Amino acid sequence: MILTVTPNPALDVTYDVERLVPHASHRVLAVREVAGGKGLNVAGVLHCCSEPVLATGAVGGATGDQLRADLDARGVAHRFARSSAPTRRTTTVVSRQEGDATAFNEPGAPWPAQAWSALVEHVADLVDQHPVRVLVASGSLPPVAGGAGVSTTFADHAYADLTRVGHAAGVPVVVDASRAALLGALAANPDVVKPNLHELREATGVDDPLAGAKLLQDRGARHVVVSLGADGILAVAPDGGVVRAALGQHLRGNPTGAGDAAVAAVAAGIAQGREWSECLREAVAWSAAAVLQPTAGVVDPADIDRLRADVRVETTRS
Amino acid sequence: MILTVTPNPALDVTYDVERLVPHASHRVLAVREVAGGKGLNVAGVLHCCSEPVLATGAVGGATGDQLRADLDARGVAHRFARSSAPTRRTTTVVSRQEGDATAFNEPGAPWPAQAWSALVEHVADLVDQHPVRVLVASGSLPPVAGGAGVSTTFADHAYADLTRVGHAAGVPVVVDASRAALLGALAANPDVVKPNLHELREATGVDDPLAGAKLLQDRGARHVVVSLGADGILAVAPDGGVVRAALGQHLRGNPTGAGDAAVAAVAAGIAQGREWSECLREAVAWSAAAVLQPTAGVVDPADIDRLRADVRVETTRS
Repeated sequence: MILTVTPNPALDVTYDVERLVPHASHRVLAVREVAGGKGLNVAGVLHCCSEPVLATGAVGGATGDQLRADLDARGVAHRFARSSAPTRRTTTVVSRQEGDATAFNEPGAPWPAQAWSALVEHVADLVDQHPVRVLVASGSLPPVAGGAGVSTTFADHAYADLTRVGHAAGVPVVVDASRAALLGALAANPDVVKPNLHELREATGVDDPLAGAKLLQDRGARHVVVSLGADGILAVAPDGGVVRAALGQHLRGNPTGAGDAAVAAVAAGIAQGREWSECLREAVAWSAAAVLQPTAGVVDPADIDRLRADVRVETTRS
Repeated sequence: MILTVTPNPALDVTYDVERLVPHASHRVLAVREVAGGKGLNVAGVLHCCSEPVLATGAVGGATGDQLRADLDARGVAHRFARSSAPTRRTTTVVSRQEGDATAFNEPGAPWPAQAWSALVEHVADLVDQHPVRVLVASGSLPPVAGGAGVSTTFADHAYADLTRVGHAAGVPVVVDASRAALLGALAANPDVVKPNLHELREATGVDDPLAGAKLLQDRGARHVVVSLGADGILAVAPDGGVVRAALGQHLRGNPTGAGDAAVAAVAAGIAQGREWSECLREAVAWSAAAVLQPTAGVVDPADIDRLRADVRVETTRS
């Protein structure tokens, strides 16, 4: 099975309104509440593809209960640690007239300092107790007590801690993080990191995706997979092999969660022992299938089957 | 004591953002969650003025628990009926740069048809069990199952039902409602109704507040108190007496909840057996004190004491 860790989950609330008018009072036409956070999107996509998955992280409060209830309703298995901080919400206002979204992301209540080590221990226990073949760690980090945001020291070691938990049990680890959290993970040599182009530039200061990816390798990453939106994927392997994969058509839809679907595909490919270039073909197909869904964390396997034939994969050496 | 009934309470969530930009993603800088709904604002104001008060209504779900926890933290006594529908939220986004607010009001989940009679019975039990001197019923009605909004039939009798519960026990009743819910209340001869000018025009189709107030009297209301915002209050009594009361100065601040403070003052005045014109003097002073607070449902009694001297009350006959 694949174990997904979401350090900073959220209850994603969507409000439909007729039209968003700043300063006005709006009647909300429909409310949806679903489990959110990048690692939970990965778990949701894996579940849609009948890939055995267990979701973890730390949740708390009434919003944490609602998050678990949503996963239960969708049949996604989970084993969360209990957090004393209530799970944050993200609220997205969708204008029906304009079809666009305005998002309000709660930072979440600060965690007490010892909560992180408790979560790391919880993940280690799950790895011990279950036949975990791949560990995926995704998304933002919770704020820690004493700082306004995420402290640099915490971000520096958080994803490295989770990577070492996987490696200590011989389990490969996929990390999807940004900024200090991404750079901090590299010290523990994660098997795959998956920044998007913006995150890669932000972390490395380098514009060219190939040069940026090789820089992350120099600092410790084994495989680097860069998601390029509609342009597909660029990946560098430890042996210097470069794979470019992209869809032969342009899809319209909802790009939120497409990167999480790519992470899910790579994790599933590793778990099933697929060729690396085939993992990336799947990543493009799963990602495209996610674009066709209105909600993140969901794909239709029939879409993946149909889209797979249209993915072009090109392998070179750098 | 004063019993306040809030048929459609809400958990009021406030999100502070730097600036509201439609279509963008916002980092929420601060989150506040307080018990909301007009009847709960009345209860909060009465509690601030050390007036014995008990808040009721029906709450449910995790948001209902949060609402009760907020009242507990503020020391406001409550005895809610349990609803199978989770309590709705209202989310207000405050732009720190512009200082203004954009509101998103959830309609709430529909109530099963029998939930209303259960609430009316619950209120009747409370009136039996407590030394209730005034019953206040305020605010919007919950949607009922089977309709998109509030059904006309339901609105037609809802506030009349509550008024009859009070009258059956010899308790005077103050109703603050709008549209069909206000008009429906009149059949049971509520002792006071308190529309604002907009609600009065909406309900009667008449522009002149005195003519509109007399129309509500013709249909069954005893006292009609019309809140006129910065222009104070106009009230007509069953004997045809007309009272105009207003503050001698213009206050800047937050008008949300000012009408609820006026209702609280009138209810407190009736409970204490004050002269009618003195009730209205208090209504203007409490209302003005509410404008000075950033949050609805709160007043500082020191502000009321200071402002009372500046209220001009004029009594005439129509």
